[in-house]
Amino acid sequence: MLRLALAQINPTVGDLAGNSRKIIEYIERARQLGADLVAFPELCLSGYPPEDLLLKQSFLADCGKWLDRTRAAACGIAAIIGFPEGRVGEVSNAAAFISDARLAGIYRKALLPNYGVFDEMRYFKPGDGRQVFEIGGITTGISICEDIWHYDGPPSIQAQQGGASLLINISASPYHASKGGERADMLAARARDYGAIVAYVNTVGGQDELVFDGQSLVFDPRGRLIARGPQFEEDLLLVDLDIAGRRRADRSTASTGPPIERTVIPITASSPKPAVETRNLEPLQPVAEIYRALVVGTGDYVRKNGFARVVIGLSGGVDSSLTAAVAADALGADNVIGVAMPSPYSSPQSLTDAQQLARNLGIELRILSIGDVLHSYLETLREQFAGRPPDVAEENLQARIRGNLLMALSNKFGWLVLTTGNKSEIAVGYATLYGDMAGGFAVIKDIPKTLVYELARWRNAQQQSEIIPARVMAKEPSAELRPNQRDTDSLPPYSVLDPILKAYVEEDRGLEEIISMGFDRDTVRYVTKLVDRNEYKRRQAPPGVKITHKAFGRDRRLPITSRYTETA
Amino acid sequence: MLRLALAQINPTVGDLAGNSRKIIEYIERARQLGADLVAFPELCLSGYPPEDLLLKQSFLADCGKWLDRTRAAACGIAAIIGFPEGRVGEVSNAAAFISDARLAGIYRKALLPNYGVFDEMRYFKPGDGRQVFEIGGITTGISICEDIWHYDGPPSIQAQQGGASLLINISASPYHASKGGERADMLAARARDYGAIVAYVNTVGGQDELVFDGQSLVFDPRGRLIARGPQFEEDLLLVDLDIAGRRRADRSTASTGPPIERTVIPITASSPKPAVETRNLEPLQPVAEIYRALVVGTGDYVRKNGFARVVIGLSGGVDSSLTAAVAADALGADNVIGVAMPSPYSSPQSLTDAQQLARNLGIELRILSIGDVLHSYLETLREQFAGRPPDVAEENLQARIRGNLLMALSNKFGWLVLTTGNKSEIAVGYATLYGDMAGGFAVIKDIPKTLVYELARWRNAQQQSEIIPARVMAKEPSAELRPNQRDTDSLPPYSVLDPILKAYVEEDRGLEEIISMGFDRDTVRYVTKLVDRNEYKRRQAPPGVKITHKAFGRDRRLPITSRYTETA
Repeated sequence: MLRLALAQINPTVGDLAGNSRKIIEYIERARQLGADLVAFPELCLSGYPPEDLLLKQSFLADCGKWLDRTRAAACGIAAIIGFPEGRVGEVSNAAAFISDARLAGIYRKALLPNYGVFDEMRYFKPGDGRQVFEIGGITTGISICEDIWHYDGPPSIQAQQGGASLLINISASPYHASKGGERADMLAARARDYGAIVAYVNTVGGQDELVFDGQSLVFDPRGRLIARGPQFEEDLLLVDLDIAGRRRADRSTASTGPPIERTVIPITASSPKPAVETRNLEPLQPVAEIYRALVVGTGDYVRKNGFARVVIGLSGGVDSSLTAAVAADALGADNVIGVAMPSPYSSPQSLTDAQQLARNLGIELRILSIGDVLHSYLETLREQFAGRPPDVAEENLQARIRGNLLMALSNKFGWLVLTTGNKSEIAVGYATLYGDMAGGFAVIKDIPKTLVYELARWRNAQQQSEIIPARVMAKEPSAELRPNQRDTDSLPPYSVLDPILKAYVEEDRGLEEIISMGFDRDTVRYVTKLVDRNEYKRRQAPPGVKITHKAFGRDRRLPITSRYTETA
Repeated sequence: MLRLALAQINPTVGDLAGNSRKIIEYIERARQLGADLVAFPELCLSGYPPEDLLLKQSFLADCGKWLDRTRAAACGIAAIIGFPEGRVGEVSNAAAFISDARLAGIYRKALLPNYGVFDEMRYFKPGDGRQVFEIGGITTGISICEDIWHYDGPPSIQAQQGGASLLINISASPYHASKGGERADMLAARARDYGAIVAYVNTVGGQDELVFDGQSLVFDPRGRLIARGPQFEEDLLLVDLDIAGRRRADRSTASTGPPIERTVIPITASSPKPAVETRNLEPLQPVAEIYRALVVGTGDYVRKNGFARVVIGLSGGVDSSLTAAVAADALGADNVIGVAMPSPYSSPQSLTDAQQLARNLGIELRILSIGDVLHSYLETLREQFAGRPPDVAEENLQARIRGNLLMALSNKFGWLVLTTGNKSEIAVGYATLYGDMAGGFAVIKDIPKTLVYELARWRNAQQQSEIIPARVMAKEPSAELRPNQRDTDSLPPYSVLDPILKAYVEEDRGLEEIISMGFDRDTVRYVTKLVDRNEYKRRQAPPGVKITHKAFGRDRRLPITSRYTETA
């Protein structure tokens, strides 16, 4: 019997001392709970992804030092710890297999993802997968994230995995909605294909645009789930594995090329193990899961960047209301300051709605009217604008005054500004650069407007009393930058806009294909042209939590200068 | 005798119709000048880099269509045209070898750069290099950019090149200062190593952060330069090559694996060829070359994005003066509007200097005082700020008012805002987000302050009359956001700052290494900490022309959330 612990921890990129301390704490807890082996996530020592820190020799050398210090603390237990190994230009995405404070061996990631948000070929040399471990007589294959997703890697990975009774995958697998299911299906298939136990440990927490959901998993050799850790929380998931012992050697020597390196790791027979409970938690429902991703992604961005409090412009609309609710859940209501900034074009209802929201959330609300500042700008620009009708210039001025006021409060009091734009707006450029786009973190930038409503309804359903006022949910969306303005003045209804955007932005579908899905030709042309033309705004947008298959940011790298227009 | 034409053209990313039209024009010119073969740059049909357009099947299909149309126009001549070939997920960075309007063969790039600004492994499958062409009896190896830079590619490339009398490299090689020399040295070495003529054609023009310098080159088999095209300009460089004919076959079959595919391309014997001049131009001097890169990068960004005029905040300082000079040289003085925006803290001299500069350049100057708007902001914030001493909040307000005024003019009149921050400021965060950082393009964002002065002096030396006033060059740098403010209040002198920044940002040197170069320990600690802490500002900065080995932007991808601090 092998007692395995999966430590799904929340490291911080670059905080080598802090990450090491956390790893040592979890090693200690695992040992006290009688674990024989504790596995940590991919690159947990450096945090994931360290990006161009991996081009600094001093950073890599420090990672080596902290691995040594961490290793030395792992007495009387075996541990697998992800870390960047090697010198600049020769770096591996590696897993150190530590046995009783000794470095027993190193596995190096063989398949390096270089798509979507991933740039691993920029940093790492691939390993060859020719590494297998025998722990307490159990042949154990290690793999790192991408390695286990594909069958087309180096044959040695197949052989290594085919010869093992236990496959351990350490990951830093970024969250997007529905990914948990894709991952579980894939891992169950691997368990069945190889007839092996599959244990998967995933990192937790937010890092810039990414959030990691934890949710470590263990499958038996028939592909049945035997353990599932919590989502978005640190945890030590324990499981007792009753494995028959060494597998037939012929399966592990089926690969061509040099033989697979086998490292034997003895198990220190510990005193009678305390009884532990193996948890197999139900995953969160889809909307709850997304809400939780926003809370963790936002909270970690704020805290890991050294902020305690945030400030949010509250318009009385559903986007800023949802953003404030997420922030209050992430940081506590005391750490959220709302600012209502009415203009001459704001309906009185908007202020009442913002006030109601603030009361419901228990956050402070400040009110700053922008009328006087707007007047002074228009006076300053009077000669310049003489003879020109009011247009988007005057509208954007209002949004930018609000942005400036929030930034002034940020600068004076050290609060981080959270922006409130949703994915639909950001896609079509229905947002003002340096105005409502001004801030450090864009909480709902990857949430389409229709999903904003779903999340708001879900949040309201979580408690007896109303949080986001019903009137906020019911009213027609408006930027309120000119009299009687409505979003639908210049955009199709969100129920039409959002599926077009999903097809074009997230799925890279062609215009004819989108039209054939049942959308009006002119609408599709108009919407996709807006998306294309607004790349320059998105390039200057703050980061925000990725929750879809393809978010704006590192995930989607389009040129600003582009004359490509698909004909349709 | 083979008459070779190298067409260094300036394509626009995504403008397939326009790029095709331009290619056909150059094919026509080459034919009229009696060329047997005309070579175009890497991915000239799509423009370079097309980035995530390559993930759209419709874009790839359109590239295929436009290649066919372009090919059909290449009658009576051979042509090499770079284009993206294939379906999503199976795309090659390819060169079509066209002979008399027929597709004779395709070479596929084997070495895919995935460092610095390059992400080619995100998009392309590597070719195997097993392709050689025999044109008019001359064995000709084709390679694409990176392929020729290394000796460690697939052995077939070596064999292909080793067997050829003529090596043609088509490139889209981004400019940085001193790269021309590195490139010429490398190509001369390849010519000597292989005993072959090396002909290199490079694209021209600006694309977002990148600028391409053209400067096509031809070396004889002894590594002597026989032709050099102009820098930063479109051109058709012609050269008559007197090549003995087919090389020994044994050299081209030295590689292991499948044999190299040989495609025979007959030369249409043309009527007597007109005499042509082969140019071998002197390269520009270093400072002149950088200035020219700024002019082309800025002009192309503005024009290719559909703007005709630009607006620039003129402070009377050297940064905005240089930016205005570049803009006037790129777009014509009539298309540049300067705006002076004095505050209560501006010295009267600053306005006079801005006026003098505008007169010297012949650009329009508008004056908008920000005092009233500043007053209205401070009134609006009076209660909020009560009891707090003035600090960076009030300073940033001034910068943001200026940013808003420029953006208001931009929105009203359709002018693009050019920002004026230099690399030193952007590195240490001595710039205001949404203030002086607000704009569409950051002309000198990759120019350290000390180089700003050199460029300004160089520009002044180009004509009899003064352009950037002597007083602007002489005065001490100041942001003028509080009384008697000087840059050196919070920063070391630029003569110290700039070499530290170069070592840390461009060369990724460790702190101890920088200190050992002779810099004060505390200064190095302070400066590098400022660089680390201001990643969030740079992430929201507009693009600007890359002129150094490592620019901020796609070239340098650091996490915002990072607690890594090197000890020193």
